Amino acid sequence: MSDVPRPRRYAYLGPAGTFTEQALRSLPGTGTAERLPCATVTVALDAVRSGGADHAVVPIENSVEGSVPVTLDELAQGEPLIILHEMTVPVAFSLLVRPGTALADVRRVATHPHAAAQTRSWVADNLPQAEVVHASSTAAAAAALAAGPDGPSVAPWEAAIAAPLAGEHYALQVLAEGIGDNPEAVTRFVVVSRPGRPAPPSGRDKTSLVAFMREDHPGALLEILEQLTMRGVNLTRIESRPTGHALGDYCFSIDAEGHIADRRVGEALMGLRRVCADVRFLGSYERHDGKPPTIHPGTTDEEFEDATAWLSRLREGS
Amino acid sequence: MSDVPRPRRYAYLGPAGTFTEQALRSLPGTGTAERLPCATVTVALDAVRSGGADHAVVPIENSVEGSVPVTLDELAQGEPLIILHEMTVPVAFSLLVRPGTALADVRRVATHPHAAAQTRSWVADNLPQAEVVHASSTAAAAAALAAGPDGPSVAPWEAAIAAPLAGEHYALQVLAEGIGDNPEAVTRFVVVSRPGRPAPPSGRDKTSLVAFMREDHPGALLEILEQLTMRGVNLTRIESRPTGHALGDYCFSIDAEGHIADRRVGEALMGLRRVCADVRFLGSYERHDGKPPTIHPGTTDEEFEDATAWLSRLREGS
Amino acid sequence: MSDVPRPRRYAYLGPAGTFTEQALRSLPGTGTAERLPCATVTVALDAVRSGGADHAVVPIENSVEGSVPVTLDELAQGEPLIILHEMTVPVAFSLLVRPGTALADVRRVATHPHAAAQTRSWVADNLPQAEVVHASSTAAAAAALAAGPDGPSVAPWEAAIAAPLAGEHYALQVLAEGIGDNPEAVTRFVVVSRPGRPAPPSGRDKTSLVAFMREDHPGALLEILEQLTMRGVNLTRIESRPTGHALGDYCFSIDAEGHIADRRVGEALMGLRRVCADVRFLGSYERHDGKPPTIHPGTTDEEFEDATAWLSRLREGS
Amino acid sequence: MSDVPRPRRYAYLGPAGTFTEQALRSLPGTGTAERLPCATVTVALDAVRSGGADHAVVPIENSVEGSVPVTLDELAQGEPLIILHEMTVPVAFSLLVRPGTALADVRRVATHPHAAAQTRSWVADNLPQAEVVHASSTAAAAAALAAGPDGPSVAPWEAAIAAPLAGEHYALQVLAEGIGDNPEAVTRFVVVSRPGRPAPPSGRDKTSLVAFMREDHPGALLEILEQLTMRGVNLTRIESRPTGHALGDYCFSIDAEGHIADRRVGEALMGLRRVCADVRFLGSYERHDGKPPTIHPGTTDEEFEDATAWLSRLREGS
Repeated sequence: MSDVPRPRRYAYLGPAGTFTEQALRSLPGTGTAERLPCATVTVALDAVRSGGADHAVVPIENSVEGSVPVTLDELAQGEPLIILHEMTVPVAFSLLVRPGTALADVRRVATHPHAAAQTRSWVADNLPQAEVVHASSTAAAAAALAAGPDGPSVAPWEAAIAAPLAGEHYALQVLAEGIGDNPEAVTRFVVVSRPGRPAPPSGRDKTSLVAFMREDHPGALLEILEQLTMRGVNLTRIESRPTGHALGDYCFSIDAEGHIADRRVGEALMGLRRVCADVRFLGSYERHDGKPPTIHPGTTDEEFEDATAWLSRLREGS
Repeated sequence: MSDVPRPRRYAYLGPAGTFTEQALRSLPGTGTAERLPCATVTVALDAVRSGGADHAVVPIENSVEGSVPVTLDELAQGEPLIILHEMTVPVAFSLLVRPGTALADVRRVATHPHAAAQTRSWVADNLPQAEVVHASSTAAAAAALAAGPDGPSVAPWEAAIAAPLAGEHYALQVLAEGIGDNPEAVTRFVVVSRPGRPAPPSGRDKTSLVAFMREDHPGALLEILEQLTMRGVNLTRIESRPTGHALGDYCFSIDAEGHIADRRVGEALMGLRRVCADVRFLGSYERHDGKPPTIHPGTTDEEFEDATAWLSRLREGS
Repeated sequence: MSDVPRPRRYAYLGPAGTFTEQALRSLPGTGTAERLPCATVTVALDAVRSGGADHAVVPIENSVEGSVPVTLDELAQGEPLIILHEMTVPVAFSLLVRPGTALADVRRVATHPHAAAQTRSWVADNLPQAEVVHASSTAAAAAALAAGPDGPSVAPWEAAIAAPLAGEHYALQVLAEGIGDNPEAVTRFVVVSRPGRPAPPSGRDKTSLVAFMREDHPGALLEILEQLTMRGVNLTRIESRPTGHALGDYCFSIDAEGHIADRRVGEALMGLRRVCADVRFLGSYERHDGKPPTIHPGTTDEEFEDATAWLSRLREGS
Repeated sequence: MSDVPRPRRYAYLGPAGTFTEQALRSLPGTGTAERLPCATVTVALDAVRSGGADHAVVPIENSVEGSVPVTLDELAQGEPLIILHEMTVPVAFSLLVRPGTALADVRRVATHPHAAAQTRSWVADNLPQAEVVHASSTAAAAAALAAGPDGPSVAPWEAAIAAPLAGEHYALQVLAEGIGDNPEAVTRFVVVSRPGRPAPPSGRDKTSLVAFMREDHPGALLEILEQLTMRGVNLTRIESRPTGHALGDYCFSIDAEGHIADRRVGEALMGLRRVCADVRFLGSYERHDGKPPTIHPGTTDEEFEDATAWLSRLREGS
């Protein structure tokens, strides 16, 4: 064994230059980390599962497009992983070209379908003549430009819509910046690892979980929500996802305020465990926005502990 | 200290011959017990509080008249006591007279107001000419007959409506039996003692408690009920009672299925403790009707224990 | 038919001098009304049912003793009546004696059991030697003093605890005033009549009703409460009452904010009608305390009407 | 005006040979309809909005992949449309090649990303050497094969994974059938048109709607669910979707049992209208599976009508 610690290895949704890489670079202490671009979310997560990487960074939700189904489904139903961190990255799109290309030269512009949807207005106004081509990622659209015409292949487009980082990475020219229709758009990313002890509470935490209904009964969702709200645990996100078995067979992907170490969150999780067919804990981690949880009367740790002590006294008759 | 154990002393709502004495006599193992008739429920309960008696037997609820407010209020707000047992006694009224008195001689008939209400039809049909006089208890009405005319005073009535036991006790003649309007009528009694460790669960138990609302907010009762139903704890009785402070300031007297040793009952009690201004535990004891509790999916002790173990593993990351 | 209108006739819980008479006298426009003292609440209500009186005034709830069971049960299960008004009367007890009697002369003091309970401290401090005797009403205790020793009988007590009005009425001397243990104590009275169209809303109304559970199922009360709270209708009182059939067979006596003419109250009543075995409407009337209802967002009449118009447009496809 | 009615025009998610076309062809009475393949869901829906088509057929949900976000978002937030019908199509994938191509010749296989995800196992087992290329639709992957090598372009793949219909349409050879990993997989499609009067109830209907929360308060979803369940309206699907404004700003896309003409559905819709910032009705239509709704006690049209009549009588005092 070496005395020098091996740098941590982060798998991420690549190629180089994606918003995901931007998210990874924003993570403190990752300057010396090894970065492993992966072709898909599944590949990135599998790298962690197999031990090929320590962590993976993947997108989970976009303020315009909604959640990223593959990430939700992998975390819900794939081999278990745990969320350690979350962060958001503003979705600021740039129009990237090979140096020397002018706007008028662009007949085809490539990007990921989600990015196409989010830059539709700008493209309609500024590239009315251009055909929009779908690439497997924004960075792949940019990478193809860098590769040609002297590279391995001639890219079948003259411009790419991608993250600013992709421009730097592939040494492309920025013809326009901030061309998204919604300047507030952000994407939320999560950092995952193999299951382990959650980090201690920061006081501004979130807990993610997946609840599988015991049977397809109409009140199941209501019952799930009550297990949380009854203990004063607020939800920040809930998403139904098909389990893949039949139409109408759902699980619920949930983010809730608080940390698994909090008494109210613990009791709510136990309640869910009892009434659901299955509950998967996906981690407790600090919120990207640093908001403290709303705490309802009667739901602090002190009040839970007082109630526990009181019950013991009653049971003992003391 | 003597080697011979002192016989247990039971205070009860007297005088001798009440339905309460009948309830006390139905309690197994009370053959050698000392019986202390008391003038009021409060006196009987105070005898236990002061140590003058080990137990008290008092009525708590009648199927026709409803709950006995003084009992509910004493248990809710007086110096704490705990319920050990409950039993029901059929409310079978007899018309009692001094030997020799005929129905036609009865100009006034005495009884407790509740008994008067429950024998109204029979009296209207069979004693249309008689005036109904209110006595402080059915047994007192009978006792007065026994005492006169050669006793200390002349009873101002010729007949009493009372429990069959009162007839025996005061050597009165039974002119008619089973004269209640509702032959199904029963009264429920409780045996209380000073607080101590509850008896172990029998599997057919009930838990009594009083919940005081934190503030007079409209959803408070709903919240209290949810703390119970959410853990699968069924109610068998709920009664609002004024706290005595102001109109609209209530507490709730509740009987629920299950024993304080049951995990679901324990968690529900702790939940109430957290959301209520105060909760008073009044005991876990075997049901008079021997009915086992309805157990909802996810609420057995095993499921609670599984959930607790699961949460520990998650918190440990193991 | 006469040109002169017959004065309105009010039955009330007598005899003359009760707190109930005091309540009746506080009702505007009753100066010329005919007052009919009745021996019991049932007699007073039956006077209205039979047409012998236009209205009845009866006590329904005391801030210390709780509700008056006979009134609740008569309104819930007797021949239907409707509440037109409510009012409260402070429960200010006086110690009344025949002129010339001194405190030291009092060996026995008579009053209604509820009044005895509410003056226990004062009596213990000021009449430690006196026996407390139960009378059928506070006014009856006072009336007996007036009647003797020159009256038809010798009263078996020297003092009565009763309403100030009883002192005036029976020309007794007031030895002490305001002797209740709880100076805030009030009793609430209702004025009832035969069913008819409710008075128009005042904007500060209350609606009374009785809900009979469809079956003895544990969630029934929760379901009843939700029918009200879901439409933004707040409860001011809820009371379980036995139906008289079996232990555990309850109905719920409910006071709620708002008037039956309010859209949210109407929808809640219809909801109760659908989920309950039976619902009895007991009237909409102005609150004694003049408090306006709390109105939750989305529950004004305007919002209900907007929603109705919107649904019509959707159903028409217009 | 012509005497011959213009054939109905159906826009659908093309190109020819998609599962969507298969869904459209399964619709009774569309034999003579004009079919308009459209490049995207948005283009198909806009064709209806602009009057260029009478109806559009688009996928809304897949049993494996979950809902189709663009369809949900267009229906929720685009210019209003209404669902008239739904149908499901089994997702039976075929491996299509140009006549003469053998399995061993396939180096690249093209399909839509969702189809790639659903045939992963088969491809791993049977085409381990092949690269999977993403096309804009399964039919487009097939169409490209038909077009070349003598067509306008050389398709950059040798095989396509697509619907059986695409094989027929583009005269391709079927190398393998039913190659999906999940043989039960189905996709649900909806037929939409411009808003109008809903078809009368069939007794086996579903109602779709979108509820926008009034504010981002934690109990909002619970409140929305209660408006439905309280009136006995069961949900068959609920999906949170971002409104596109900020992370955490959701609307809920809901399918519920029953028809807008049903009294319980109408009252639930009005309740949602009152408590939500906005509610969009998306249509009442016959269920694809012909299941009748579960009807809870107290929620039939007759019970609603009885309650309405009862309330009128109470308000009239008759």
